Amino acid sequence: MKLFGNAVIGQSGGPTAAINATLAGVIRGAMLSREIETVYGSINGLEGILENRLTELNGQFQRKECFDLLIQTPAAALGSCRKKLKDPEEDPETFRLLFERFRAANIRYFFYIGGNDSMDTVKKLSAFASSGGSDWEMRFIGVPKTIDNDLFGTDHTPGFGSAAKYIAVSVQEILRDCSVYTVPTVTIVEIMGRDAGWLTAAAALPGRISGKAPDYLYFPERSFSYDAFFGDLKEALSLHPNVVVAVSEGIRLSDGTYVGSGAQSGVADVFGHRYLAGTGKVLEGAVRETLGCKVRSVELNILQRCAAHCASKTDWDEAFSIGREAVTAALDGGSGIMVGFCRESDNPYRVSVTSSDVSQIANRIRCLPDEFINPSGNGVTEPCLDYLMPLIVGEPETVWRQGLPVHFAIDQSVFRPREESKS
Amino acid sequence: MKLFGNAVIGQSGGPTAAINATLAGVIRGAMLSREIETVYGSINGLEGILENRLTELNGQFQRKECFDLLIQTPAAALGSCRKKLKDPEEDPETFRLLFERFRAANIRYFFYIGGNDSMDTVKKLSAFASSGGSDWEMRFIGVPKTIDNDLFGTDHTPGFGSAAKYIAVSVQEILRDCSVYTVPTVTIVEIMGRDAGWLTAAAALPGRISGKAPDYLYFPERSFSYDAFFGDLKEALSLHPNVVVAVSEGIRLSDGTYVGSGAQSGVADVFGHRYLAGTGKVLEGAVRETLGCKVRSVELNILQRCAAHCASKTDWDEAFSIGREAVTAALDGGSGIMVGFCRESDNPYRVSVTSSDVSQIANRIRCLPDEFINPSGNGVTEPCLDYLMPLIVGEPETVWRQGLPVHFAIDQSVFRPREESKS
Repeated sequence: MKLFGNAVIGQSGGPTAAINATLAGVIRGAMLSREIETVYGSINGLEGILENRLTELNGQFQRKECFDLLIQTPAAALGSCRKKLKDPEEDPETFRLLFERFRAANIRYFFYIGGNDSMDTVKKLSAFASSGGSDWEMRFIGVPKTIDNDLFGTDHTPGFGSAAKYIAVSVQEILRDCSVYTVPTVTIVEIMGRDAGWLTAAAALPGRISGKAPDYLYFPERSFSYDAFFGDLKEALSLHPNVVVAVSEGIRLSDGTYVGSGAQSGVADVFGHRYLAGTGKVLEGAVRETLGCKVRSVELNILQRCAAHCASKTDWDEAFSIGREAVTAALDGGSGIMVGFCRESDNPYRVSVTSSDVSQIANRIRCLPDEFINPSGNGVTEPCLDYLMPLIVGEPETVWRQGLPVHFAIDQSVFRPREESKS
Repeated sequence: MKLFGNAVIGQSGGPTAAINATLAGVIRGAMLSREIETVYGSINGLEGILENRLTELNGQFQRKECFDLLIQTPAAALGSCRKKLKDPEEDPETFRLLFERFRAANIRYFFYIGGNDSMDTVKKLSAFASSGGSDWEMRFIGVPKTIDNDLFGTDHTPGFGSAAKYIAVSVQEILRDCSVYTVPTVTIVEIMGRDAGWLTAAAALPGRISGKAPDYLYFPERSFSYDAFFGDLKEALSLHPNVVVAVSEGIRLSDGTYVGSGAQSGVADVFGHRYLAGTGKVLEGAVRETLGCKVRSVELNILQRCAAHCASKTDWDEAFSIGREAVTAALDGGSGIMVGFCRESDNPYRVSVTSSDVSQIANRIRCLPDEFINPSGNGVTEPCLDYLMPLIVGEPETVWRQGLPVHFAIDQSVFRPREESKS
């Protein structure tokens, strides 16, 4: 049962404000275990293993302060990649090379922190190993990470809580900003979420605290109708002058085309280049044209995924703990699994740790359930807010210096296994 | 010398994260003075006085907690307006009405918190009064407020420090977000500032702390050249794959046209409506077309002016104190003046309070001085960073509830002076 050797950790996919808290948890768990000797970080995810770019982490984390600073640093400290593995039948060479690298560095444990695509990688590597593709014994563990909250196998994903908090805080501030003038104005806030409306739903959270929330929300889970949209806006404008709506970037018309793609086909810049102006900009133009009132759009953009200065303490605590749980699961003999959370109760908020077969998780998208969206499709329900609320709670104590948060940089100097340096 | 009566406070122009700290300072100072009896807030600035929409503030600020919550609330709590007064010769009726309102409510003190336009209002009202336009004795005081930092008569404006901090913190996070991939990518951050580059300069601050800063900055103070811009980008891309630049929204070509206005004339949305896509979007398209690399633009947008969750403690403390100083100046007999700060020293940071004739301030724009911009016009100098650094220092202790900052809402119920209710 016990498997002695080294471990490698990789980070993959888009950045989050909590992905390094998970990294810190895995490093800490691995450093405390008797079975794991050296903990390597793979620079740029799977690419780092293939290209022999590993860095040794044990020596860099001898003090608690290093963990604390890593936790408060946004975006993958080991770098990331978007590499997707093909099937071993299609690309046997890559699998052969990966296991050669593992063997050369005596790596027995592989932890991959990421979303759907990363779980696909874990699935393929563990299936290859367990089906006898290699005689090198290893354990492959997926650790969830995505601001989109669209992974199966967990109640929610680390990184989502902090993104949801950033959105809720920013929308609450935008609502106040918009309230100061008396001229009728529509403000459209565009929020990330190509396929699922979880992040857009978080824009409703200020209503629970301050009683002020966006008038309407629009999700990718419901097809978007301009008629219904203009009807909503007219009704809101009849009640008060400062109308604010939030839209997912991925909303689509009933024929399946993205609302934002209208711009892609119809808009050209000064160079004649056609580009995606963004869902918010397209709706801004449509409102100006149709309602004629003052209108603006605000795209929250990449700060949604990297605004660690506004992180959720609940999210960071959970992200760290799920990293440690991933190590425990591996030491217990698990492989081809992803660790996750199971919600025991909303209030008081309580979760337990679960693990699931990655083949049930990879390449699938978990959308907002019907009971979280109101019957008109333009807002959330109370159970949705009950679900979201605990995830943004708590402000972590972060270290600032001269007015800015302190970030931690992992020394990415490459370690070369002995076998490699010979060649 | 002593003048007994009531006071009215108005807020005008765009929101900031510190305008309510100044409001709190004026309210506090006025409530502590023997000469001022009732403190009124004018709802929506000058409009509130003209339309008789005043609210009584003394009763709402009996506890310290109310001041603390008002300070941490972004955007004008009394509402704002964009009203610009004409000259009294052109529009005598408005001046007659304003002074009638002042007299009816026994108002002897007028405090106006705002930028250039607001100082123009203070100038016109005080000039009208002192030139005998009314026999109602009053004192008119301007209190500086603008994120743009473009006012004369003060070393810096309350509101700027918090906006600069939000920009520095966000850019530092964007720099990390951009560092995770290995594909050559240009990220363009668009920052507010139609005429002055103060806010864009703040994007350089992370370099002082973490050694990471945007590769280049472009200001409205220097004419923008596409050739020089592409040259800068090529050089940066030759050094590292993740290039980040910051641009002021107001950069202009040598012929004086806004870079962003290229989109206005050249871009049409799906409805055939031509709109301003934004300076960042225009440059994004130009880079894609010319360099062919991956490129994106991020517009920091209105959060720059309302992100109180990321405020500078120095800014809030100063904003509160300048509000109190405004009251002191009025009680000392001042009128037609704006209070402001004079920098005594960068390190240790020290300012004193000054006051200036509003006629020297109104309708003028203070740009970045030449010595703050590097010779190539695409970055800042060390003296610029020395100037900016102290303004973003300190994180205020704010009150959060269930994961969100608590905002304070002023009861805007209208008080009607006796004379008015008779009519």
